Amino acid sequence: MKRPSRGFDDAEFAARCGKAQAAIKARGAGALLLTSEAEIRYFTGFMTQFWQSPTRPWFVVIPLTGKPIAVIPSIGVPLMRSCYTDDIISWASPDEHDDGITLVCDVIRQHLASGATLGMLMGRETAVRMPLADLFALQTALNGISFTDMTPDIQHIRMVKSPAEQAKLRYVCGIVSDVFDSVPSWVHAGMPLDETFRRFKIRALESGVDDVSYLVGAAGADGYGDIIAPPTTAPLAHGDVFMFDTGCVWDGYFSDFDRNFSIGTPSDTANDAHKKLFDATEAALAILRPGVTAAALFSEMDKILRPGKTTAGDDVGRYGHGLGIQLTEAPSHTAWDKTVITAGMALTLEPSIAYGNGALMVAEENVLVHEQHVELLSRRASRDLPVIDG
Amino acid sequence: MKRPSRGFDDAEFAARCGKAQAAIKARGAGALLLTSEAEIRYFTGFMTQFWQSPTRPWFVVIPLTGKPIAVIPSIGVPLMRSCYTDDIISWASPDEHDDGITLVCDVIRQHLASGATLGMLMGRETAVRMPLADLFALQTALNGISFTDMTPDIQHIRMVKSPAEQAKLRYVCGIVSDVFDSVPSWVHAGMPLDETFRRFKIRALESGVDDVSYLVGAAGADGYGDIIAPPTTAPLAHGDVFMFDTGCVWDGYFSDFDRNFSIGTPSDTANDAHKKLFDATEAALAILRPGVTAAALFSEMDKILRPGKTTAGDDVGRYGHGLGIQLTEAPSHTAWDKTVITAGMALTLEPSIAYGNGALMVAEENVLVHEQHVELLSRRASRDLPVIDG
Repeated sequence: MKRPSRGFDDAEFAARCGKAQAAIKARGAGALLLTSEAEIRYFTGFMTQFWQSPTRPWFVVIPLTGKPIAVIPSIGVPLMRSCYTDDIISWASPDEHDDGITLVCDVIRQHLASGATLGMLMGRETAVRMPLADLFALQTALNGISFTDMTPDIQHIRMVKSPAEQAKLRYVCGIVSDVFDSVPSWVHAGMPLDETFRRFKIRALESGVDDVSYLVGAAGADGYGDIIAPPTTAPLAHGDVFMFDTGCVWDGYFSDFDRNFSIGTPSDTANDAHKKLFDATEAALAILRPGVTAAALFSEMDKILRPGKTTAGDDVGRYGHGLGIQLTEAPSHTAWDKTVITAGMALTLEPSIAYGNGALMVAEENVLVHEQHVELLSRRASRDLPVIDG
Repeated sequence: MKRPSRGFDDAEFAARCGKAQAAIKARGAGALLLTSEAEIRYFTGFMTQFWQSPTRPWFVVIPLTGKPIAVIPSIGVPLMRSCYTDDIISWASPDEHDDGITLVCDVIRQHLASGATLGMLMGRETAVRMPLADLFALQTALNGISFTDMTPDIQHIRMVKSPAEQAKLRYVCGIVSDVFDSVPSWVHAGMPLDETFRRFKIRALESGVDDVSYLVGAAGADGYGDIIAPPTTAPLAHGDVFMFDTGCVWDGYFSDFDRNFSIGTPSDTANDAHKKLFDATEAALAILRPGVTAAALFSEMDKILRPGKTTAGDDVGRYGHGLGIQLTEAPSHTAWDKTVITAGMALTLEPSIAYGNGALMVAEENVLVHEQHVELLSRRASRDLPVIDG
């Protein structure tokens, strides 16, 4: 597979910011304040693992016109200079008394008359990444300016992937598909689960991903029960069903799909669960096209997984989600998410099923929606549970 | 090096919670609400990479007595059952109308009479991980209950590492020291920087770390200027100074140190910068013992790095920090951080220096403070800049 180019050109960021600016205007706001990693990266291209340090706050203000304005710790200035902004205001963070609050407040006031409205991300799947005491101080300093929630606007912009974003997603999912295909050649009964994790990570890196940001999984006799835990040191045994679920990253874009395996011939119960999950993703794929809703995808899968049930949701809460620069993005395939699917959306289909004596099985595929067809980013899982050491 | 055991026994969590409960009482509060990954892990042992999904909020309430109470999405219940809590309240998140707010509110009210005070993390290095609109809804629902900031209390508890925590830090730093020592045997002129990153990650995994959570670095003729960027694809060239800075993780505990190298013989300017950084860490190590302050460590390093300067800070803002379950933790070695160092603290010493034509060099060591001595967790860097292909 041909490796796409890294980064994006300015036209990509201009288009993203232009959409945000139309939304700011439509909300009657004067600017949008961003504090979080994904959004700051999406609108400026500022990409660094340094976000793992909780010490310093980072601010980006998107005005009604022009490029974003960065108000950031000076340690980030060299990197931000290469990003989509012409206006970088910085300070030597951490500061004892004022960690950027006065600076960002000044920028906001320059773009908003008193009495005007500031766009913020306040809704589902967002969090304000700054100390709460500083946020309250900002509210006080912005006395006369009210907040308006722009979460739905920004999520809708981010949901639709540009051709350049699609290429990155296709590339990382292709690599991870190869790694999953190789699993039966190097996982065997007797190997401790944590060792399979380590080898998976090494193989994924050798195969070309930048990072194995997310790898969870589980194994258990005839099934597993936990799908977010770190691995145990228990060796895989004949009769185990085991699962890897990984979010690998290339140039900041995530894959997010899993694969299930059986060590030796599986029980009919376990294999039936796997077939039902396959059938559920088939059912979703059969209706997936621009114009259907996330709720319809949920409903179509739920009919297969829990025939006759009419209540919404299950213990996992949803059957998939959006995919992009975060492991999970909007929308959510739930009974209540009425998001209309459009061309350019990258989605996971992630049905789960309870079976046997408290076991849980999850399947996941990654897809890209086009006007006339649906593209599988993940190489399709088999209907039967794949067997290792059969 | 002997591998420590994974996880912690209940006594460890009981001790942590006991300290928090004493602080809650001292603040006149009735409970402490936690929403963030590091704190929820610290007090319950709940460890999962699933935090990378921004979809679901997670709540833990520490009451005045007894174990923490978890109010969490049902997808986390199996893992939380293995953690330090006897009381798990869950819901099928994401929920359309109420993503845990009513549930967590009920728990808080059970532990607080109206008019009482709820401990929150509102200060430096913290952020409330839930939608702002939900936080405002929680404030409204908790009408009559006020928030008190417990950031300093919780940071002071976390700063002092137990013997079990120390063993994990020692182990991961030992592995990373080996990986750094191996660098001159496999990095050579002509290798693209991103390829050195990929190989570093694979080597670290092969050597036993669980994850290479953080790897940044840079290279440039006679010096680099950016210390948080992802790698470029430019091949290393003779005359380059280059740097890896990594936060590797074992059982949830971070290393955080870097190493600088020269491709071919370095210039005197670059080598002098490296020697000054070494001398700065030596000066800090010479005074480091229980009773000194973080500010004193800053001052001692700054005297070497910027002789004659009296203003605080520089563009990097600090010369090191705490280390543990996050890449960076409190305290900060700045002119103003009066935190008193005590036995059990894990710290980085991270001086930086500007030299030549806009170049920056950063050195970093990881140390553990004991009553009678300081233990180097990272294998000491050499005073002279190490040479590759010399």
